[in-house]
Formats: sequence, structure tokens, C-alpha cells
Amino acid sequence: MVVLKTSTPPVPSGNKVNNGFPYSNGAIKPHFTPSLNSFINLDQGDPEVFAPYWRKKSEECTVVIKGSDLMSYMSDMTNVCWFMLPELRDAIRRLHHVVGNASAGMDKHIVVGTGSTQLFQAALFALSRSSDPSNHNPINVVAAAPYYSEYQDEVEVLRSGLYRWGGDARVYDKNEEYIEVVTAPNNPCGSIRRAVAMARSEGDELGKLIHDFAYYWPQYTPITEEYDHDVMLFTFSKCTGHAGSRIGWAIVKDIEVARKMTRFIQMSSIGVSKESQIRVAKIIGVICDSYQKIGSSLQSDDLFFEHSKRMLRERWDKLRAVVDKSNIFSLDKYPKNYCNFTRQNSETYPAFAWIKCCGAIEDCESYLRSLKVYSRGGKRFGVDGKYARVSLLCRDEVFNEFLTRISNARLQV
Amino acid sequence: MVVLKTSTPPVPSGNKVNNGFPYSNGAIKPHFTPSLNSFINLDQGDPEVFAPYWRKKSEECTVVIKGSDLMSYMSDMTNVCWFMLPELRDAIRRLHHVVGNASAGMDKHIVVGTGSTQLFQAALFALSRSSDPSNHNPINVVAAAPYYSEYQDEVEVLRSGLYRWGGDARVYDKNEEYIEVVTAPNNPCGSIRRAVAMARSEGDELGKLIHDFAYYWPQYTPITEEYDHDVMLFTFSKCTGHAGSRIGWAIVKDIEVARKMTRFIQMSSIGVSKESQIRVAKIIGVICDSYQKIGSSLQSDDLFFEHSKRMLRERWDKLRAVVDKSNIFSLDKYPKNYCNFTRQNSETYPAFAWIKCCGAIEDCESYLRSLKVYSRGGKRFGVDGKYARVSLLCRDEVFNEFLTRISNARLQV
Repeated sequence: MVVLKTSTPPVPSGNKVNNGFPYSNGAIKPHFTPSLNSFINLDQGDPEVFAPYWRKKSEECTVVIKGSDLMSYMSDMTNVCWFMLPELRDAIRRLHHVVGNASAGMDKHIVVGTGSTQLFQAALFALSRSSDPSNHNPINVVAAAPYYSEYQDEVEVLRSGLYRWGGDARVYDKNEEYIEVVTAPNNPCGSIRRAVAMARSEGDELGKLIHDFAYYWPQYTPITEEYDHDVMLFTFSKCTGHAGSRIGWAIVKDIEVARKMTRFIQMSSIGVSKESQIRVAKIIGVICDSYQKIGSSLQSDDLFFEHSKRMLRERWDKLRAVVDKSNIFSLDKYPKNYCNFTRQNSETYPAFAWIKCCGAIEDCESYLRSLKVYSRGGKRFGVDGKYARVSLLCRDEVFNEFLTRISNARLQV
Repeated sequence: MVVLKTSTPPVPSGNKVNNGFPYSNGAIKPHFTPSLNSFINLDQGDPEVFAPYWRKKSEECTVVIKGSDLMSYMSDMTNVCWFMLPELRDAIRRLHHVVGNASAGMDKHIVVGTGSTQLFQAALFALSRSSDPSNHNPINVVAAAPYYSEYQDEVEVLRSGLYRWGGDARVYDKNEEYIEVVTAPNNPCGSIRRAVAMARSEGDELGKLIHDFAYYWPQYTPITEEYDHDVMLFTFSKCTGHAGSRIGWAIVKDIEVARKMTRFIQMSSIGVSKESQIRVAKIIGVICDSYQKIGSSLQSDDLFFEHSKRMLRERWDKLRAVVDKSNIFSLDKYPKNYCNFTRQNSETYPAFAWIKCCGAIEDCESYLRSLKVYSRGGKRFGVDGKYARVSLLCRDEVFNEFLTRISNARLQV
């Protein structure tokens, strides 16, 4: 059962933290400039690192919405997802075609959601036995640890009779139906994942899969494959950094699953903001144009994914240099892979660093807090407190201050 | 328990209807022009009647959103509802001050949601014992019949262990905790409501209230009172007709309730579209300016609420004239009341007509369907099938075609 938590670190000077999203009376404003005395917040993954790129493209991506535009609940009544603007559906198909990360052709159904958070819950509803009133066995929802810290809360928040949290997929051994959430690259640790519970029960049809591909974009990881799974979730927040728009989408094979997901979103919020939909369609169009116009005068750094990958690679290079000299922190290495999109071999540059504390430090989150850095501890992800997740998507000055703070930290040997 | 329904009328020629929101292969497009052979859809309340007004104000209400605007998850970390733009919060307070329909001063907390649908569920979460893991008694959610057709589905969709549907508030007599939803003016029937289950149990503290004030705006009903209840829900969809924006808000007295509602929306969708928030703030600003600049050259019909009230009054006058001559249909009368906003005595002009079929016709929805009119039958609202709800917010040509169809219908005596 979920309890309202104020779980993340107690903040000094009367500030409160609301389970990851702190509200304060001044100390942790999103646009503060860090000083020696202020906390820096690397708990959430607010994707500020991409903002300078979009400032350069600001005019090109501008949308103008008039007073009488986009007023109806409905968008396209011939489509299963009747509240999705056709412009957005087409833009999403085009983006996947350009990037090559997922199969989103005309044989697939696209369902738009208020972020992929809403779509995750819509998928749980659609894959559970929601249409069978006589069923009283909630389906187990599992994910391999370390798993995204919010899955468990999102599954448990309403104490649903349709589904329940089943814990770590690696140790799941019930002879009951389950849904495995596969996050690739994984949040928090950046590893490339495949289903694990599924693999054990192959052929027994007890398992269903949700693939959360929030970070399967070229800036974070090589695009090694055009995925074609039953239910694949994406979010614009992590694709381009436009988190305020709250736009996610699912690519769904089975029309009945798409229909049930749509029905869930109807009951949850009667659709999805059209202003956000039209803006996201516009920005995706600008990105796709920039790639499809290649041979034009665009430099590689004018291209969103190349620019963003360079930003993340530079941060990872700096972070690894600091960690290599540290006797406190360590980081895993990621394998190199050929990226079909950039046509280069490349490492993974995850949005988060999954930092392990060495030696006697048992609680990495608390240790980082002693350095006035908010992070999210391993226990939230179903593993050891020696780990903590640190966002690398912050602004430059915050990232640099973070490096300074961890550089200065030394264990007395 | 809720089952996925395809409940509303079976549509000819292969069309399917998705529990009120039909998707079709052509016959029920939102902007079709009715012909003798086409169905007209008055099942949903898509507020198209207000669009011509906003076309006149289109330039004045235009928002321009640049590529790098509104990118963060966060808006105002000093506020309980940390994802709400301060511009929207201030606009909402100003609007209630101008209209005088609800107390929204600085002592109240505003929580923004993806439509009031999401806020209704956030309020259920906040008023249930969600923070007590040892509680296994779901709270009963009741509403006086006829009640809004979606409440029951929204309560039951996930088979929550926190709350369950308790049916008609008028006959609720359990000695258990409950939440009563008070919809005023009521959807479907337009009557002004006060709590009824609450009244019986006064003082025993078993009951909590949610006031759904979606239609408590001057175009629909006289503003007789500045309400000041614990949890009051509003939606921009019905206030101005901008349903595609999916913006609702709650005015909440207790900070802990506001905090839990915010937490629910965080887990449901990590906030609310900022594009929609900024646009709604702009449009509210234009409305409030038009009233606060009075004495200027604005004619009454340039003012949104006056214009919209005239539109609805004209429709009601025409509808009553037709129904008065009918031997099939009847409509209730609404009392006149003094409106503090318009400073006139006025009837209620609800967004929906709650039509009763006379005599031998037991199923009003089916009868209307035989006239090729989609409506929503009384059983969906917890009452007799002799009633059906018909949207009066459609476009002029659809409304006029509806009048023609019901004028031509006569029972053979």
C-alpha cells in the first residue's frame, strides 16, 4: 500500500520536499544560481540541458494559437485515439521513421497521453482484466531492479483491484499473470534492458510487456535496433526536453489495447491538451526537417540529436574524470555500440548518473546531501542505499557546481 | 465494477461508439452539416456554441509560444501546486473576483488539473484515507440522482480500494464515511443543488463534500451566491468553451487536501500542460479586462457572459416553443433568481436539455435515436429511461436541425 510520503531529504530552513518534487520558500528555485551555501537539486530529471539549443531555434519553433483555435474535445473521430490531433500522429510517425528507433507505421496505433506517466497507467488498465467484472485477481506488475522509482507508487496509489506491484522482475516466480515493465535504456542505471521475467516463462503466456523507451533517443544511447514491441511508451519530455508540455505517446500493436488505453485517458482526463499537441507536432516537424534537408548548410551542431549528444558526452567525460580521481564514488562503464542513426560507434550517455559510494558509506543519498546535493537514493529504485541517482540534465552552472562539490570530497584513509 | 462499455446507441453503417465519444468512419464528424439522412450527435456536450464569439476575439486572445518557452516540469516551487503557472493562478483568482461565483482569495489554495475530470479523481484520493495503509474500508462516493453519468465510471474504473461508488445520495443510509458530489447547476437536469446526504448526517462528521461547479457561470444560471465550500471544482471547458485545452481547477480550503490533490496529479501525469495553462490565463485576462474596462465602448454583446447567455436563452426559448406544441416531449421549468453578476432576474439556461418522453415511450434515448438524434438516456444518470439528456451547446445548424426533427415528431393519438 502506498502512503503519502515526504520521503526525499529533509531540507533545512523550513523547506518541504514533496516526494521528489520539492516546494520550498526560496532555496530550491529552478533557476537559482548555486552558491556555496545553497543546495543543488539533482533529484528530478528536469531536462534543462536542452534549453540553450531551443533558444537558438526559438523563432523557428514558434506556434501561434488564436482565441478560437483547438476548442473541441474531439480531434479525429475516425481514429481510435479520437482526441489526438492528426498533425501530431503524423509527426510522431515521421520522427520514428527519421530516427529509426521504433516501428510506427500505419499498422500501428498511436495513443497520445498527458506524459508517458498517464500512458503507463493506461497500459496497466488495458493489459489487466479490466473488462472482466468477475475477475478479482489483480495482475502483478514487475520490473527488474533497479527500476524507475515512480512505478511502484503509480501502481499502488489507488490500491487498484486490477493490478498490484509485484516487485523485482528478476526474482518474480509466481505462477500468476504479470506485466513486466522494461525500461531501456534503464532509469536509473542506463543499462540496455530486455524482458527478464518474460524470458523465464516463455510460451506460458502469463506475461505481458510494457516497454518504456523514454530514453531511447540518439543523444542518450546508440540506436541499435528499430524496436517493434506490443506496447512502447515514449515521452517528449526526454526526447527534446519539453517537459512542461506533458506529451507522451504509446505505439500499440493491438487495436483493442489501444482502444482500452484511449478509454482510460478519456476517463482520467477526457483527452490531452491540444495546445501541447500542436506545439509538439511543430517542434517534431522542425527536427525532422533539419534531418531531411541534410546536404543543406546545417552544421552537425545545429542538429538536435547531435548537439544534445555532444552536450551529454562532454558532461559524462567531465564526470568520469572526477570520479576516476575520487576515492568515494564509482560509476559503471557502458559498452560501445554502433548507432544506426548517427552511423558511429558510441557509448551510452544516460540522463542520470548512477553513482555508487565506496567503502564505509552505506547511504549515498545522505552522503551527497552532506555535500548539499539532492539525489535519489538506491532504495527508491529497489536496490542498495550505496547507490544514488543524480540528474545530468541540469543547467551548466549547476552541473559544474556538482563536479566541484564531488571533486572536493575525499575520504580520510 | 466497471466494464468497458460500448453503451450508447449502436450506430448504423459500421460506426462504433466509445461510451459517449464515438469514433466513426465518417458519419459523425464534429463539423458535419446535418442532412436528412445523417445522425446528429447531442450526446456529448462539446461547447461549440461559444466558438463564433471567440472567432471575433481571436486576435485579442492569441498566444505566441516560442521554442524554448515553458520547458520545465516546474512552475512555482513556493506553491503547494508546484506545476501551476503563477499567471494562471492569478487569472483564476481574478475571474472569480469579477464573476463573484466562488471565494478564491489568498486564504484558498488553487490546484490546476487536466480538466475537472482529473481533479475529481484527485479530490477522491485526497478525501479518502489514502495516507492510512491500515485502512481497508473504501469510502462511499454518492451523488443525488440524476447524477453526472461519468461519476460512477470514474469512481469504479480502477476498482480502487480507497473509494467505491455508493449510488444515489438521496437514499444513502449507511453508517459509514462518504463523499457526496454536489453538482450545481446539476448535470443533466440543470437544477440548483445542495448536499442531501450531508444534511441528514449533520454533525456526525461521516460526510465530506466535493462541489462540482462546472456550470456555475453567468451564461447558464444566475450567480446567486459567492460559494465558499471546502473543495470546489471548475472547468474552463464549460466556462468559455475551450474544451480542447483540458484545464480545470479546484479551490481548496485545507492545505493538506490541496497537497494530496497535487500529489495525485503528480502521480497521474506529473503536472498539467503549460501551453494550455498560459493560454487559459491569457483568455481569462481578456474576459476580465472587458468587464473591468466597462464604461468603455464595449456593447453588452461584446461581453462574453452576456453574449453567451443570450445565445443560450434564445435556444431555450426556441426549444420551449417546440416542446410546448409537442405531445411527446416535456421539459421542467426553472425558477427565476436575481443574478448578482448581471444584476437582473433570470432563469437558468442549462447546457443540456433534460427531456422527458410522455405516455407510452419508455426509452427516450431510443425514441430520439429513431429521429436520428444521439442523446444520453436517463439510466446513465441513475434514473428512468423516460428521460434523456440533449446537449444544447452544439453549432447553430445542428441545433436548428434538432428542433426540426422534434417538431416533426407526433404521437398518433
